[in-house]
Amino acid sequence: MPMTSDIDVIVHEVGPRDGLQATNVIMPTTAKIEWIAALKDAGVPMIQAGSFVPPKLVPQLADSAEVVRAAKAMGGFKVSALIPNLKGAMNALEAGVDLLDFVMSASEAHNLSNVRKTHEQSIEEFLEIVALKGSDPAYAGVMLNGTIATSFGCTISGPVDPKTVFHLVETYIATGADSISIADTVGYANPKQVGEIFTQARAIAGELIVGAHFHDTRGLGLANAFAALEAGVRQFDGCLGGLGGCPFAPGATGNVVTEDLVFMFEAMGLRTGIDLDRLLAARDVMKSHLDGEPTHGAIAKAGPPKGFEPATVQP
Amino acid sequence: MPMTSDIDVIVHEVGPRDGLQATNVIMPTTAKIEWIAALKDAGVPMIQAGSFVPPKLVPQLADSAEVVRAAKAMGGFKVSALIPNLKGAMNALEAGVDLLDFVMSASEAHNLSNVRKTHEQSIEEFLEIVALKGSDPAYAGVMLNGTIATSFGCTISGPVDPKTVFHLVETYIATGADSISIADTVGYANPKQVGEIFTQARAIAGELIVGAHFHDTRGLGLANAFAALEAGVRQFDGCLGGLGGCPFAPGATGNVVTEDLVFMFEAMGLRTGIDLDRLLAARDVMKSHLDGEPTHGAIAKAGPPKGFEPATVQP
Repeated sequence: MPMTSDIDVIVHEVGPRDGLQATNVIMPTTAKIEWIAALKDAGVPMIQAGSFVPPKLVPQLADSAEVVRAAKAMGGFKVSALIPNLKGAMNALEAGVDLLDFVMSASEAHNLSNVRKTHEQSIEEFLEIVALKGSDPAYAGVMLNGTIATSFGCTISGPVDPKTVFHLVETYIATGADSISIADTVGYANPKQVGEIFTQARAIAGELIVGAHFHDTRGLGLANAFAALEAGVRQFDGCLGGLGGCPFAPGATGNVVTEDLVFMFEAMGLRTGIDLDRLLAARDVMKSHLDGEPTHGAIAKAGPPKGFEPATVQP
Repeated sequence: MPMTSDIDVIVHEVGPRDGLQATNVIMPTTAKIEWIAALKDAGVPMIQAGSFVPPKLVPQLADSAEVVRAAKAMGGFKVSALIPNLKGAMNALEAGVDLLDFVMSASEAHNLSNVRKTHEQSIEEFLEIVALKGSDPAYAGVMLNGTIATSFGCTISGPVDPKTVFHLVETYIATGADSISIADTVGYANPKQVGEIFTQARAIAGELIVGAHFHDTRGLGLANAFAALEAGVRQFDGCLGGLGGCPFAPGATGNVVTEDLVFMFEAMGLRTGIDLDRLLAARDVMKSHLDGEPTHGAIAKAGPPKGFEPATVQP
């Protein structure tokens, strides 16, 4: 596993979760494991291997327990998984994840639609997960992350009041979160808003990590990532090839493109611990198992600049 | 013409020049005029209508004088044109441009390849253009912009020393430029480099406008635009639909996408004077005359966020 001291920015690949849950194709378990192995080879320090949601809701991720176990057996990187509720947390802990990623939407309308809970009900569920994690010393090393989805706007209710986001940051921390992620789930954010929200959220969170999760739906994914970086954020989610497009916006890109994000950081002199060539090889592995799914990204097409020197020195 | 006081950021559409010079299709003169009229209707304050280069080198822009005359006859926006040399400047002035955009590359190898001149020879040519413009009171209102191409790196010689860029900014100003543009001609820039170069260039240029010209070849066009904005830049080139892709990078995007740039600024509360819906209509006009040419951009696919309120108030 890369030492923290060798990394300036943590890039968290969420493609095997956020990417695959939006694809038409169901990627076979063996293919997911091959893809994750290729990500490990590239030096990706944290990978979201699945989501412990009911399989009938997201059949693409029905094999998450098996994928998490295989990823953990590889070693060399942190394995995270999304959890919507207590039952998901139980299954994720049993599978052996390093990080539980609990999700609540800043937009209550979106939260009701997504997990059928009010904010109050989500917080109750979160408290039960905190208790579960505390109930067994075997889970002492597992991190519990609180994600705040739709923090920059919502497709159902439109603008979201930043005060709601800050309140949820406070609530997560008060109730036992080890880290926070603030997510632009539907690609609504702009760099000014990103700078303001992350500056304030980081002030509230103190020494806890506040990670950023952006979508590139309106082209601003990397601009928002740079704005968050300027606000001090040092952990970013991304999807190889920008997987995760919304079925309601045909042709629109999904998550911020991991390989372009890594290129941006490395070009700026920030070490990600990731080898860009090997990351592009992992992209090829992913594509080979996603026949016909649209992928995005610039660096895969254009290649790095002549004379490009990444910040990460490969052994 | 929009009052300067009503605009926070000037967006300069260079599609009819930088975009069209890279297309396989030659757009008919009437189509270019229809496109420019649609850009005017959207409120674009400055449009690069053509390039006064030898027609045999860039046949796509052989009708630049006619297009400039038609654009000037419309009124309501500034008409710019690229000029590589004194002869081009004569023809552009005769056609009636508001702004002459002279180009020199920071990379001398690129300058030799592009205009077959050393820096010294380019500066001599620039001085002759300054003298030409000063020779007739009729040209007193024409602005002379000095563009520095390949300021962030070069496909021929790789990295470019920022000192060269700063030296050319000083030289342009000392010899009579009214404004400066710093261009990432081949899409090599990263936001850190952009912040550093524009901060220093603006310090040198004092009250003169320093504009930014980005390509999105490696996905960082908008991130770089935001970094330049943070460094105080308030004039940006763009191409509708990200036209201007490089023939040597198949599928790669070209110039930064004007409509996404406008969306970013307006979402951040900065007035461009441009109506996004009408700008997308102008994009459709462009596309209707560019059968089969690849176009890019996110906002055209995804549409604005629910509840989006642009900064520019339309009359």
